[in-house]
Amino acid sequence: MFTDHLQPVALSELPLLFNLGGTSLVSAAFEGKEDVMPATWVCPLNYDPARVTACVDSCHYTRPLIEKSGMFALALPTAAIVNEVMYLGHVSENDEPAKLEKSGAKFFKMPGYDMPFVEGCAAYAVFRVLPEPHIEKTYDLFIGEAVALWADRRVFRDGAWRFEEVPESMRTLHYVAGGRFHVIGRGFDVHQSR
Amino acid sequence: MFTDHLQPVALSELPLLFNLGGTSLVSAAFEGKEDVMPATWVCPLNYDPARVTACVDSCHYTRPLIEKSGMFALALPTAAIVNEVMYLGHVSENDEPAKLEKSGAKFFKMPGYDMPFVEGCAAYAVFRVLPEPHIEKTYDLFIGEAVALWADRRVFRDGAWRFEEVPESMRTLHYVAGGRFHVIGRGFDVHQSR
Repeated sequence: MFTDHLQPVALSELPLLFNLGGTSLVSAAFEGKEDVMPATWVCPLNYDPARVTACVDSCHYTRPLIEKSGMFALALPTAAIVNEVMYLGHVSENDEPAKLEKSGAKFFKMPGYDMPFVEGCAAYAVFRVLPEPHIEKTYDLFIGEAVALWADRRVFRDGAWRFEEVPESMRTLHYVAGGRFHVIGRGFDVHQSR
Repeated sequence: MFTDHLQPVALSELPLLFNLGGTSLVSAAFEGKEDVMPATWVCPLNYDPARVTACVDSCHYTRPLIEKSGMFALALPTAAIVNEVMYLGHVSENDEPAKLEKSGAKFFKMPGYDMPFVEGCAAYAVFRVLPEPHIEKTYDLFIGEAVALWADRRVFRDGAWRFEEVPESMRTLHYVAGGRFHVIGRGFDVHQSR
């Protein structure tokens, strides 16, 4: 089972997960309604407490679910589910109520959280919204404070990405536009000597 | 000359440059003082007008230069200058007034702008700060509206990255932590068919 590969990650490691700049999936749920959409405009904001920013336009079905529940989840999809990511981005639940089931994605829940998680992501994070009405309204920008993190231990463990140990299909996705993606590439270490 | 490779990019293409999530260099200048620092927490915010967010902690020498000038530049360094990027991040001009010259980086100016630009980046962008005192103070978060963009035409032209045509040393850098970087990897297209 996919979830057997997940293990909790310390909140302090949030930037390690999101610093690479991978495209995210945003999930939210409220009173039985739920949605998942890709969002490239997601970014770490702070170490302790661990915070991110996430830009979610008001046209998305996900937006009121975030506003009403005060919660959202982020995940880092891998190349294996790129078609599902594209579908989740191109189809709105406003137009297609069966979006999630038609996406081809496989969903699961994390105990204690009701937003839908998509199988095949390298990492998962749940956030509570820090209310900032001015920037939410003016810039569609939400600030989230992390409450739980998990990673697929095959690709991230002991505070480090392990992409060199897995197939390319398990690497993070970095979206450009118009259906163009890159996977993350080779890792290397730089030791400051100057 | 490095700058011979640069060509202007339309402001509407800002997300194409920054969506990949590459680590940035932030530059600013005010009354003869100038600084450059790497920042991983930089993210597109809007298409039109083209905007970004940039998180710049108050401990950095760059911060008051941004606040006083109301301007900053971002650039996407390539693997070729990773040692210079590390130096610019590990040494503060607060401690080492000769930081920039000791960094080993080569600098140039763009006509009309006084912040230092570092040679060896894939793209460059200049922003004016949209004043948002609350989030600047509370979250160290600045909102910038793009006023000019350029890219190295060898790696980005006609609205698309061309990494497959250049050596790995010309790929964008994606920082994790502790001196660990990844370069961006293989690009591919997904055509929505479902």
